[in-house]
Amino acid sequence: MKKTVMNLTLCAMFALPLTVLAQQWEALPKQAPSPADNPQTAAKVELGKTLFFDPRLSEHGTLSCNSCHNVMGGGDDNRPNSIGMHDARGGRSAPSVWNAAFLSAQFWDGRAATLEDQAKGPITNPIEMGMSDAKVAIERLQAIPDYLPLFKAAFPESREPLTMDNVAKAIAAYERTLITPDTPYDRYVRGDKKALDAQQLRGMQTFAEVGCNACHMGANFSGPALPAGEGFFMKFPNIAGSEYDKKYDLLADTGRHSVTGKDSDRHLWRVPTLRNVALTAPYLHNGKVATLDEAVRLMAKTQLNKELTPAQVKDLVAFLGSLSGNFPQQTMPRLPMTPGNSVVPPVDPHLTVKTAKK
Amino acid sequence: MKKTVMNLTLCAMFALPLTVLAQQWEALPKQAPSPADNPQTAAKVELGKTLFFDPRLSEHGTLSCNSCHNVMGGGDDNRPNSIGMHDARGGRSAPSVWNAAFLSAQFWDGRAATLEDQAKGPITNPIEMGMSDAKVAIERLQAIPDYLPLFKAAFPESREPLTMDNVAKAIAAYERTLITPDTPYDRYVRGDKKALDAQQLRGMQTFAEVGCNACHMGANFSGPALPAGEGFFMKFPNIAGSEYDKKYDLLADTGRHSVTGKDSDRHLWRVPTLRNVALTAPYLHNGKVATLDEAVRLMAKTQLNKELTPAQVKDLVAFLGSLSGNFPQQTMPRLPMTPGNSVVPPVDPHLTVKTAKK
Repeated sequence: MKKTVMNLTLCAMFALPLTVLAQQWEALPKQAPSPADNPQTAAKVELGKTLFFDPRLSEHGTLSCNSCHNVMGGGDDNRPNSIGMHDARGGRSAPSVWNAAFLSAQFWDGRAATLEDQAKGPITNPIEMGMSDAKVAIERLQAIPDYLPLFKAAFPESREPLTMDNVAKAIAAYERTLITPDTPYDRYVRGDKKALDAQQLRGMQTFAEVGCNACHMGANFSGPALPAGEGFFMKFPNIAGSEYDKKYDLLADTGRHSVTGKDSDRHLWRVPTLRNVALTAPYLHNGKVATLDEAVRLMAKTQLNKELTPAQVKDLVAFLGSLSGNFPQQTMPRLPMTPGNSVVPPVDPHLTVKTAKK
Repeated sequence: MKKTVMNLTLCAMFALPLTVLAQQWEALPKQAPSPADNPQTAAKVELGKTLFFDPRLSEHGTLSCNSCHNVMGGGDDNRPNSIGMHDARGGRSAPSVWNAAFLSAQFWDGRAATLEDQAKGPITNPIEMGMSDAKVAIERLQAIPDYLPLFKAAFPESREPLTMDNVAKAIAAYERTLITPDTPYDRYVRGDKKALDAQQLRGMQTFAEVGCNACHMGANFSGPALPAGEGFFMKFPNIAGSEYDKKYDLLADTGRHSVTGKDSDRHLWRVPTLRNVALTAPYLHNGKVATLDEAVRLMAKTQLNKELTPAQVKDLVAFLGSLSGNFPQQTMPRLPMTPGNSVVPPVDPHLTVKTAKK
């Protein structure tokens, strides 16, 4: 009773209807959860950061995890799809690595249960980092002698510390530090009522009234906290037949179905976080929607069958903007080097050297 | 007289012949020189670092200066040649950006007088970052509104601060912070006689005796300090006709001649620094020599007509290793973002999307 009274008082103070405050608005925890078999240590995080930035984990020594998940930006590459080895590009857009630690399944189709599972994927994906298999990737790292002490420090209990499992564990440990708990939204929810402006507050209210939080709920705006791997999936488009299906080719990729083969999983997608969404254009799994305005309009229509007014779109976009940053400052890692030689293969016989100067 | 006595005393102490100490061994200055029209300021260096790491300065938004001049490593990409837009690669190897501030001409053929001149090259080179021209590159930056305040802070005197000249000035200012004055060699020269071990000292002696310092002289091991743009050029191979010419295709690229067209410039090359050379394999302008051992053997033969013993090669490589690091720790820049949209063009119509998952 006391709480309701307080809420009503607050509502009166800020002239907001009850809906906004009655929602379970949650601030992001200051730490991400980590699995029992991969506790965070400073040595592991530092190794993970080094691996995350090491382009030698790719076939040509040109792409690191950071190439497509740029932590100096919004944690993605602001492209419809990323560009991998041999100029390859895929059909899905790189999701942000920021706050991925709070997702209960990884990849757009949730095919990896944990950050550890996810981290192994791109390294050996032929159209991403392109290492032919995990063995080759580990041999590459073994050829860089100064990596071994870093693995030993990060995994003191491991007999053979330089393994793909430990590569993935270290990268995942680093990724668990890539969280942004201090956005204006979080400060507002924690009590700083000046952290959001009037338009952002209207957007927050609209977010709840329209029903965006039916899927984008919880502290990470990606659904409830579920056991790792369970994932929170929703159908998209939920209401097929809108103009958007064709305009943005929404039905070509069957999402979760492409993993399980189950008809019931057709067009099911893991609900992505909305944190830093303003910084990760273009939008959707296929990156075909250029602006956040359009993504908001489209989602309201395809998921909730609602036509938003231009004012509602603006307010929602303003509110979503309050979910961006505040990014922690990071130091650059120093990559262990191989004095006198390079571990990157010298020849790409299938490619022609074009004329150029350096 | 006093100095000679001291040198002789030191020689006696360390059982070194006079040759080592009589050479003008110079430590690297703690600061790089900067031109009068581009003084260093903190705001300019920070802007330059941000630009250096911003992949949106490339056509596809995938390559930054750091992609080929990785400051988390030896300042290059450890590849024979770099990979640019559309999977293009050139005929020359990316030189290290570390200590480039001490060179009196930039690029292998010295075609840029200053770091400022050099910085503009790769951005609009079709096989590197691939922006169609400087105007397009500036329009890309103008489309990122938060860059303008950074340019204003860096160039308070400029009426129109966001120009290609200022992009180049800022990047050059950042590059002037990329210096490594505290290597074991430098500490030795400054008086810490334990900074080099016995093998490195033998290598240092061999370096002078064999005559490597006929070209690789001075604090940066890249020739004398000359006015910007003058450059210090030497013929390579100096003695043509060795087995190496064919083995490593040494005569295909005419070097300085390809810039000036002058016959007298045929196979002239800017003398590169040897600082961090151990970290920048593979070697030579064309990146065709895999190891530092082989590069040392080759240079002694092609430049000085000397056949080194295996022990001499080992000692020289050990000495060259003392010219690596000690790299300053750096913070990562935060790239100014464009909330709600991306400035990277969404479509590459000339390229096919391959099947893939994210």
